[in-house]
Amino acid sequence: MSVIERLTGELSRLPGVGQKTALRLVHHLMKGAKEDTHRLARSLVDLAEKIRECRECGNFSEDELCEVCADPRRDGSVLCVVEEAYQVGAIEGTGQFRGLFHVLGGRLSPLDGIGPAELNIESLLRRVADSGGMIEEVIVATNASVEGEATAVYLEGEIRAFGPRVTRLARGIPVGSDLEYVDGSTIAQALAGRREM
Amino acid sequence: MSVIERLTGELSRLPGVGQKTALRLVHHLMKGAKEDTHRLARSLVDLAEKIRECRECGNFSEDELCEVCADPRRDGSVLCVVEEAYQVGAIEGTGQFRGLFHVLGGRLSPLDGIGPAELNIESLLRRVADSGGMIEEVIVATNASVEGEATAVYLEGEIRAFGPRVTRLARGIPVGSDLEYVDGSTIAQALAGRREM
Repeated sequence: MSVIERLTGELSRLPGVGQKTALRLVHHLMKGAKEDTHRLARSLVDLAEKIRECRECGNFSEDELCEVCADPRRDGSVLCVVEEAYQVGAIEGTGQFRGLFHVLGGRLSPLDGIGPAELNIESLLRRVADSGGMIEEVIVATNASVEGEATAVYLEGEIRAFGPRVTRLARGIPVGSDLEYVDGSTIAQALAGRREM
Repeated sequence: MSVIERLTGELSRLPGVGQKTALRLVHHLMKGAKEDTHRLARSLVDLAEKIRECRECGNFSEDELCEVCADPRRDGSVLCVVEEAYQVGAIEGTGQFRGLFHVLGGRLSPLDGIGPAELNIESLLRRVADSGGMIEEVIVATNASVEGEATAVYLEGEIRAFGPRVTRLARGIPVGSDLEYVDGSTIAQALAGRREM
Protein backbone atom coordinates (compact mmCIF):
# COMPACT_ATOMS: atom_id res chain seq x y z
CA MET A 1 0.00 0.00 0.00
CA SER A 2 1.38 3.41 -0.91
CA VAL A 3 2.09 6.16 1.61
CA ILE A 4 -0.83 8.18 0.28
CA GLU A 5 -3.25 5.26 0.43
CA ARG A 6 -2.20 4.39 3.96
CA LEU A 7 -2.64 7.95 5.27
CA THR A 8 -5.94 8.31 3.42
CA GLY A 9 -7.11 5.11 5.09
CA GLU A 10 -6.05 6.29 8.55
CA LEU A 11 -7.79 9.65 8.12
CA SER A 12 -10.99 8.19 6.73
CA ARG A 13 -11.40 6.22 9.96
CA LEU A 14 -11.93 9.49 11.84
CA PRO A 15 -15.55 10.51 12.53
CA GLY A 16 -17.07 12.66 9.80
CA VAL A 17 -14.14 12.08 7.46
CA GLY A 18 -14.99 10.01 4.38
CA GLN A 19 -12.68 8.73 1.66
CA LYS A 20 -12.99 11.92 -0.39
CA THR A 21 -12.38 14.26 2.52
CA ALA A 22 -9.40 12.17 3.60
CA LEU A 23 -7.89 12.40 0.15
CA ARG A 24 -8.46 16.15 0.08
CA LEU A 25 -6.65 16.48 3.42
CA VAL A 26 -3.74 14.40 2.14
CA HIS A 27 -3.47 16.60 -0.92
CA HIS A 28 -3.57 19.70 1.21
CA LEU A 29 -0.72 18.34 3.34
CA MET A 30 1.30 17.40 0.27
CA LYS A 31 0.95 20.92 -1.16
CA GLY A 32 1.91 22.53 2.14
CA ALA A 33 5.23 22.76 3.94
CA LYS A 34 6.75 19.52 5.22
CA GLU A 35 7.26 21.13 8.59
CA ASP A 36 3.50 21.62 9.05
CA THR A 37 2.90 17.91 8.55
CA HIS A 38 5.69 17.04 10.97
CA ARG A 39 4.24 19.39 13.57
CA LEU A 40 0.81 17.78 13.23
CA ALA A 41 2.41 14.35 13.65
CA ARG A 42 4.27 15.48 16.77
CA SER A 43 1.09 16.89 18.32
CA LEU A 44 -0.61 13.54 17.73
CA VAL A 45 2.23 11.67 19.44
CA ASP A 46 2.05 14.12 22.35
CA LEU A 47 -1.67 13.49 22.64
CA ALA A 48 -1.21 9.72 22.69
CA GLU A 49 1.61 9.92 25.22
CA LYS A 50 0.57 12.69 27.59
CA ILE A 51 -3.20 12.64 27.97
CA ARG A 52 -4.79 10.50 30.66
CA GLU A 53 -7.88 10.53 32.86
CA CYS A 54 -8.02 12.80 35.88
CA ARG A 55 -7.77 10.59 38.97
CA GLU A 56 -10.56 12.51 40.66
CA CYS A 57 -13.21 13.26 38.03
CA GLY A 58 -12.32 11.31 34.86
CA ASN A 59 -11.79 14.45 32.75
CA PHE A 60 -8.91 14.52 30.23
CA SER A 61 -5.72 15.64 31.88
CA GLU A 62 -2.00 16.04 31.36
CA ASP A 63 -1.39 15.53 35.08
CA GLU A 64 -2.80 13.28 37.77
CA LEU A 65 -5.43 15.93 38.49
CA CYS A 66 -7.11 17.87 35.67
CA GLU A 67 -7.00 21.67 35.52
CA VAL A 68 -10.43 21.98 37.08
CA CYS A 69 -9.82 19.61 40.01
CA ALA A 70 -6.38 21.17 40.63
CA ASP A 71 -7.79 24.71 40.81
CA PRO A 72 -8.30 25.69 44.49
CA ARG A 73 -10.67 28.51 43.49
CA ARG A 74 -13.30 26.08 42.19
CA ASP A 75 -16.38 25.59 44.31
CA GLY A 76 -16.26 22.09 45.78
CA SER A 77 -19.88 22.19 46.95
CA VAL A 78 -21.33 21.67 43.44
CA LEU A 79 -20.62 18.70 41.20
CA CYS A 80 -21.68 18.62 37.55
CA VAL A 81 -22.05 15.10 36.13
CA VAL A 82 -21.53 14.70 32.36
CA GLU A 83 -21.54 11.66 30.13
CA GLU A 84 -18.27 12.26 28.29
CA ALA A 85 -15.07 14.15 29.04
CA TYR A 86 -15.46 16.32 25.96
CA GLN A 87 -18.67 17.76 27.40
CA VAL A 88 -16.69 19.37 30.21
CA GLY A 89 -15.41 21.86 27.64
CA ALA A 90 -18.93 22.82 26.57
CA ILE A 91 -19.84 23.76 30.13
CA GLU A 92 -16.47 25.39 30.88
CA GLY A 93 -16.92 27.45 27.72
CA THR A 94 -19.92 29.24 29.22
CA GLY A 95 -17.80 30.62 32.06
CA GLN A 96 -20.91 30.26 34.23
CA PHE A 97 -20.00 27.20 36.27
CA ARG A 98 -17.47 27.38 39.08
CA GLY A 99 -17.98 23.92 40.59
CA LEU A 100 -16.29 20.59 39.87
CA PHE A 101 -17.08 17.82 37.38
CA HIS A 102 -17.58 14.09 37.29
CA VAL A 103 -17.33 12.20 34.01
CA LEU A 104 -19.45 9.04 33.73
CA GLY A 105 -17.75 7.74 30.60
CA GLY A 106 -21.06 7.01 28.88
CA ARG A 107 -24.74 6.51 29.67
CA LEU A 108 -26.82 3.59 30.89
CA SER A 109 -27.79 1.50 27.88
CA PRO A 110 -28.90 -2.02 28.81
CA LEU A 111 -29.29 -3.00 25.14
CA ASP A 112 -25.59 -2.30 24.60
CA GLY A 113 -24.69 -4.07 27.82
CA ILE A 114 -23.85 -0.82 29.62
CA GLY A 115 -25.09 -0.96 33.20
CA PRO A 116 -24.07 1.06 36.28
CA ALA A 117 -20.91 -1.05 36.73
CA GLU A 118 -19.63 0.03 33.31
CA LEU A 119 -19.80 3.73 34.19
CA ASN A 120 -17.88 5.83 36.75
CA ILE A 121 -20.86 5.77 39.11
CA GLU A 122 -19.24 4.06 42.07
CA SER A 123 -16.49 6.70 42.12
CA LEU A 124 -19.15 9.40 41.95
CA LEU A 125 -21.04 8.02 44.93
CA ARG A 126 -17.78 7.60 46.83
CA ARG A 127 -16.89 11.24 46.14
CA VAL A 128 -20.26 12.37 47.46
CA ALA A 129 -20.04 10.11 50.53
CA ASP A 130 -16.40 11.01 51.30
CA SER A 131 -17.15 14.73 51.10
CA GLY A 132 -18.97 14.44 54.43
CA GLY A 133 -21.74 16.81 53.35
CA MET A 134 -19.34 19.23 51.59
CA ILE A 135 -21.00 18.43 48.25
CA GLU A 136 -24.38 20.16 48.51
CA GLU A 137 -25.62 19.86 44.96
CA VAL A 138 -25.12 17.44 42.08
CA ILE A 139 -26.18 18.79 38.67
CA VAL A 140 -26.93 15.87 36.39
CA ALA A 141 -26.01 17.17 32.92
CA THR A 142 -26.49 13.95 30.97
CA ASN A 143 -27.78 14.33 27.41
CA ALA A 144 -31.44 15.09 26.68
CA SER A 145 -31.78 11.65 25.06
CA VAL A 146 -33.79 8.67 26.27
CA GLU A 147 -30.66 7.03 27.65
CA GLY A 148 -29.40 10.28 29.16
CA GLU A 149 -32.74 10.74 30.94
CA ALA A 150 -32.73 7.17 32.21
CA THR A 151 -29.19 7.63 33.50
CA ALA A 152 -30.24 10.84 35.27
CA VAL A 153 -33.19 9.16 36.96
CA TYR A 154 -30.97 6.31 38.13
CA LEU A 155 -28.32 8.68 39.49
CA GLU A 156 -30.90 10.78 41.29
CA GLY A 157 -32.07 7.73 43.24
CA GLU A 158 -28.52 6.79 44.18
CA ILE A 159 -27.22 10.26 45.08
CA ARG A 160 -30.16 11.60 47.09
CA ALA A 161 -29.56 9.00 49.81
CA PHE A 162 -26.26 10.75 50.61
CA GLY A 163 -27.90 14.11 51.19
CA PRO A 164 -27.11 16.53 48.35
CA ARG A 165 -29.71 18.21 46.17
CA VAL A 166 -29.90 16.64 42.73
CA THR A 167 -30.75 19.00 39.85
CA ARG A 168 -31.02 18.79 36.05
CA LEU A 169 -30.22 21.26 33.29
CA ALA A 170 -33.35 23.12 32.19
CA ARG A 171 -35.06 21.91 29.00
CA GLY A 172 -36.48 24.59 26.73
CA ILE A 173 -36.22 26.62 23.55
CA PRO A 174 -32.59 27.06 22.45
CA VAL A 175 -31.47 30.69 22.38
CA GLY A 176 -31.90 32.27 18.95
CA SER A 177 -34.23 29.66 17.55
CA ASP A 178 -37.57 30.18 15.84
CA LEU A 179 -40.52 28.44 17.53
CA GLU A 180 -41.60 27.15 14.13
CA TYR A 181 -38.51 24.96 13.91
CA VAL A 182 -38.46 23.69 17.48
CA ASP A 183 -39.83 20.17 17.94
CA GLY A 184 -43.04 19.61 19.88
CA SER A 185 -41.57 17.84 22.88
CA THR A 186 -39.07 20.65 23.43
CA ILE A 187 -41.90 23.18 23.31
CA ALA A 188 -43.88 21.04 25.74
CA GLN A 189 -40.93 21.00 28.16
CA ALA A 190 -40.43 24.75 27.70
CA LEU A 191 -44.11 25.32 28.55
CA ALA A 192 -43.94 23.08 31.60
CA GLY A 193 -40.80 24.88 32.77
CA ARG A 194 -42.03 28.40 32.07
CA ARG A 195 -40.87 31.14 34.41
CA GLU A 196 -42.25 34.41 35.74
CA MET A 197 -40.89 37.45 33.86
CA MET B 1 -0.61 25.88 25.47
CA SER B 2 -1.92 22.44 26.40
CA VAL B 3 -1.44 19.34 24.27
CA ILE B 4 -5.14 19.32 23.41
CA GLU B 5 -5.20 23.00 22.44
CA ARG B 6 -2.12 22.60 20.28
CA LEU B 7 -3.46 19.60 18.37
CA THR B 8 -6.86 21.26 18.00
CA GLY B 9 -5.11 24.29 16.53
CA GLU B 10 -3.09 22.17 14.08
CA LEU B 11 -6.17 20.26 12.92
CA SER B 12 -8.33 23.36 12.53
CA ARG B 13 -5.82 24.69 10.01
CA LEU B 14 -6.78 21.85 7.61
CA PRO B 15 -9.31 22.71 4.89
CA GLY B 16 -12.91 22.10 5.91
CA VAL B 17 -11.97 21.52 9.55
CA GLY B 18 -13.19 24.22 11.94
CA GLN B 19 -12.53 24.60 15.64
CA LYS B 20 -15.47 22.38 16.61
CA THR B 21 -14.64 19.60 14.17
CA ALA B 22 -11.00 19.70 15.29
CA LEU B 23 -12.04 19.32 18.91
CA ARG B 24 -14.34 16.44 18.01
CA LEU B 25 -11.46 14.69 16.24
CA VAL B 26 -9.18 15.20 19.24
CA HIS B 27 -11.80 13.71 21.54
CA HIS B 28 -12.23 10.77 19.21
CA LEU B 29 -8.49 10.15 19.27
CA MET B 30 -8.38 10.43 23.05
CA LYS B 31 -11.16 7.86 23.43
CA GLY B 32 -9.51 5.46 21.00
CA ALA B 33 -6.42 3.30 21.33
CA LYS B 34 -3.07 5.08 21.65
CA GLU B 35 -1.68 2.88 18.91
CA ASP B 36 -4.18 4.28 16.37
CA THR B 37 -2.99 7.82 17.08
CA HIS B 38 0.65 6.73 16.79
CA ARG B 39 -0.07 5.03 13.48
CA LEU B 40 -1.72 8.19 12.12
CA ALA B 41 1.29 10.23 13.24
CA ARG B 42 3.69 7.80 11.53
CA SER B 43 1.71 7.95 8.28
CA LEU B 44 1.95 11.75 8.38
CA VAL B 45 5.71 11.61 8.86
CA ASP B 46 5.97 9.15 5.97
CA LEU B 47 3.99 11.50 3.78
CA ALA B 48 6.20 14.46 4.63
CA GLU B 49 9.38 12.46 4.07
CA LYS B 50 8.60 10.24 1.11
CA ILE B 51 6.31 12.09 -1.27
CA ARG B 52 7.83 14.26 -3.99
CA GLU B 53 6.96 15.42 -7.51
CA CYS B 54 7.40 13.06 -10.43
CA ARG B 55 10.40 14.30 -12.44
CA GLU B 56 8.51 13.80 -15.68
CA CYS B 57 4.93 14.93 -15.12
CA GLY B 58 4.72 16.66 -11.72
CA ASN B 59 2.34 14.07 -10.23
CA PHE B 60 2.81 12.98 -6.59
CA SER B 61 5.29 10.16 -6.37
CA GLU B 62 7.28 8.04 -3.95
CA ASP B 63 10.01 7.54 -6.57
CA GLU B 64 11.68 9.73 -9.17
CA LEU B 65 9.01 8.68 -11.66
CA CYS B 66 5.37 8.33 -10.63
CA GLU B 67 3.44 5.08 -11.08
CA VAL B 68 1.88 6.29 -14.32
CA CYS B 69 5.10 7.50 -15.95
CA ALA B 70 6.94 4.36 -14.82
CA ASP B 71 4.34 2.04 -16.36
CA PRO B 72 5.56 0.88 -19.80
CA ARG B 73 2.03 -0.16 -20.78
CA ARG B 74 0.77 3.43 -20.77
CA ASP B 75 0.13 5.06 -24.14
CA GLY B 76 2.78 7.73 -24.66
CA SER B 77 0.98 9.28 -27.62
CA VAL B 78 -1.69 11.01 -25.49
CA LEU B 79 -0.98 13.53 -22.74
CA CYS B 80 -3.67 14.71 -20.32
CA VAL B 81 -2.95 18.13 -18.77
CA VAL B 82 -4.50 18.81 -15.34
CA GLU B 83 -4.22 21.77 -13.00
CA GLU B 84 -3.37 19.92 -9.80
CA ALA B 85 -1.76 16.57 -8.97
CA TYR B 86 -4.82 15.42 -7.03
CA GLN B 87 -6.87 15.59 -10.24
CA VAL B 88 -4.80 12.76 -11.71
CA GLY B 89 -6.61 10.42 -9.34
CA ALA B 90 -10.03 11.57 -10.57
CA ILE B 91 -9.13 10.63 -14.15
CA GLU B 92 -7.29 7.44 -13.18
CA GLY B 93 -10.38 6.45 -11.19
CA THR B 94 -12.44 6.19 -14.38
CA GLY B 95 -10.14 3.49 -15.75
CA GLN B 96 -10.82 5.00 -19.19
CA PHE B 97 -7.56 6.80 -19.83
CA ARG B 98 -4.39 4.92 -20.77
CA GLY B 99 -2.16 7.87 -21.70
CA LEU B 100 0.23 9.96 -19.59
CA PHE B 101 -0.30 13.11 -17.51
CA HIS B 102 1.18 16.52 -17.08
CA VAL B 103 0.46 18.56 -13.95
CA LEU B 104 0.48 22.35 -14.35
CA GLY B 105 0.54 23.10 -10.63
CA GLY B 106 -2.26 25.67 -10.94
CA ARG B 107 -4.02 27.82 -13.51
CA LEU B 108 -3.27 31.15 -15.15
CA SER B 109 -4.53 33.89 -12.88
CA PRO B 110 -2.99 37.29 -13.64
CA LEU B 111 -4.77 38.94 -10.71
CA ASP B 112 -2.97 36.56 -8.34
CA GLY B 113 0.30 37.08 -10.18
CA ILE B 114 0.23 33.61 -11.73
CA GLY B 115 1.45 33.77 -15.31
CA PRO B 116 2.83 31.04 -17.62
CA ALA B 117 6.23 31.17 -15.88
CA GLU B 118 4.64 30.16 -12.55
CA LEU B 119 3.16 26.95 -14.00
CA ASN B 120 4.81 23.81 -15.39
CA ILE B 121 4.16 24.96 -18.95
CA GLU B 122 7.74 25.13 -20.16
CA SER B 123 8.28 21.50 -19.17
CA LEU B 124 5.05 20.56 -20.95
CA LEU B 125 6.15 22.20 -24.20
CA ARG B 126 9.59 20.62 -23.87
CA ARG B 127 7.97 17.18 -23.43
CA VAL B 128 5.90 17.71 -26.57
CA ALA B 129 8.86 19.01 -28.57
CA ASP B 130 11.28 16.31 -27.35
CA SER B 131 8.81 13.55 -28.25
CA GLY B 132 9.57 14.20 -31.90
CA GLY B 133 5.97 13.73 -32.97
CA MET B 134 5.38 10.77 -30.63
CA ILE B 135 2.81 12.80 -28.66
CA GLU B 136 -0.14 13.01 -31.03
CA GLU B 137 -2.80 14.46 -28.77
CA VAL B 138 -2.85 16.72 -25.73
CA ILE B 139 -6.12 16.66 -23.77
CA VAL B 140 -6.43 19.89 -21.81
CA ALA B 141 -8.38 18.89 -18.69
CA THR B 142 -8.19 22.18 -16.81
CA ASN B 143 -11.21 23.09 -14.70
CA ALA B 144 -14.43 24.41 -16.24
CA SER B 145 -13.83 27.76 -14.49
CA VAL B 146 -13.00 31.11 -16.09
CA GLU B 147 -9.32 30.69 -15.21
CA GLY B 148 -9.29 27.06 -16.30
CA GLU B 149 -10.75 28.04 -19.68
CA ALA B 150 -8.26 30.88 -20.12
CA THR B 151 -5.42 28.49 -19.30
CA ALA B 152 -6.74 26.01 -21.86
CA VAL B 153 -6.94 28.65 -24.58
CA TYR B 154 -3.38 29.77 -23.81
CA LEU B 155 -2.06 26.19 -23.87
CA GLU B 156 -3.81 25.41 -27.14
CA GLY B 157 -1.99 28.30 -28.84
CA GLU B 158 1.37 27.15 -27.50
CA ILE B 159 1.00 23.41 -28.13
CA ARG B 160 -0.51 23.42 -31.59
CA ALA B 161 2.71 24.89 -33.02
CA PHE B 162 4.46 21.61 -32.15
CA GLY B 163 2.03 19.50 -34.14
CA PRO B 164 -0.23 17.47 -31.78
CA ARG B 165 -4.01 17.72 -31.74
CA VAL B 166 -5.26 19.70 -28.77
CA THR B 167 -8.61 18.61 -27.29
CA ARG B 168 -10.80 19.53 -24.30
CA LEU B 169 -13.03 17.48 -22.04
CA ALA B 170 -16.66 17.66 -23.18
CA ARG B 171 -18.96 20.06 -21.34
CA GLY B 172 -22.50 18.87 -20.71
CA ILE B 173 -25.11 17.54 -18.34
CA PRO B 174 -23.52 15.52 -15.51
CA VAL B 175 -24.63 11.88 -15.47
CA GLY B 176 -27.60 11.31 -13.19
CA SER B 177 -28.66 14.93 -12.89
CA ASP B 178 -32.09 16.42 -13.42
CA LEU B 179 -32.26 19.14 -16.10
CA GLU B 180 -34.19 21.30 -13.69
CA TYR B 181 -31.16 21.63 -11.42
CA VAL B 182 -28.50 22.12 -14.06
CA ASP B 183 -27.40 25.74 -14.59
CA GLY B 184 -28.18 27.54 -17.84
CA SER B 185 -24.64 27.81 -19.18
CA THR B 186 -24.08 24.06 -18.75
CA ILE B 187 -27.31 23.36 -20.65
CA ALA B 188 -26.20 25.81 -23.35
CA GLN B 189 -22.88 23.96 -23.69
CA ALA B 190 -24.68 20.61 -23.72
CA LEU B 191 -26.93 21.85 -26.55
CA ALA B 192 -23.98 23.19 -28.53
CA GLY B 193 -22.14 19.88 -28.09
CA ARG B 194 -25.15 17.61 -28.81
CA ARG B 195 -24.39 14.32 -30.57
CA GLU B 196 -26.21 12.07 -33.01
CA MET B 197 -27.88 9.10 -31.27
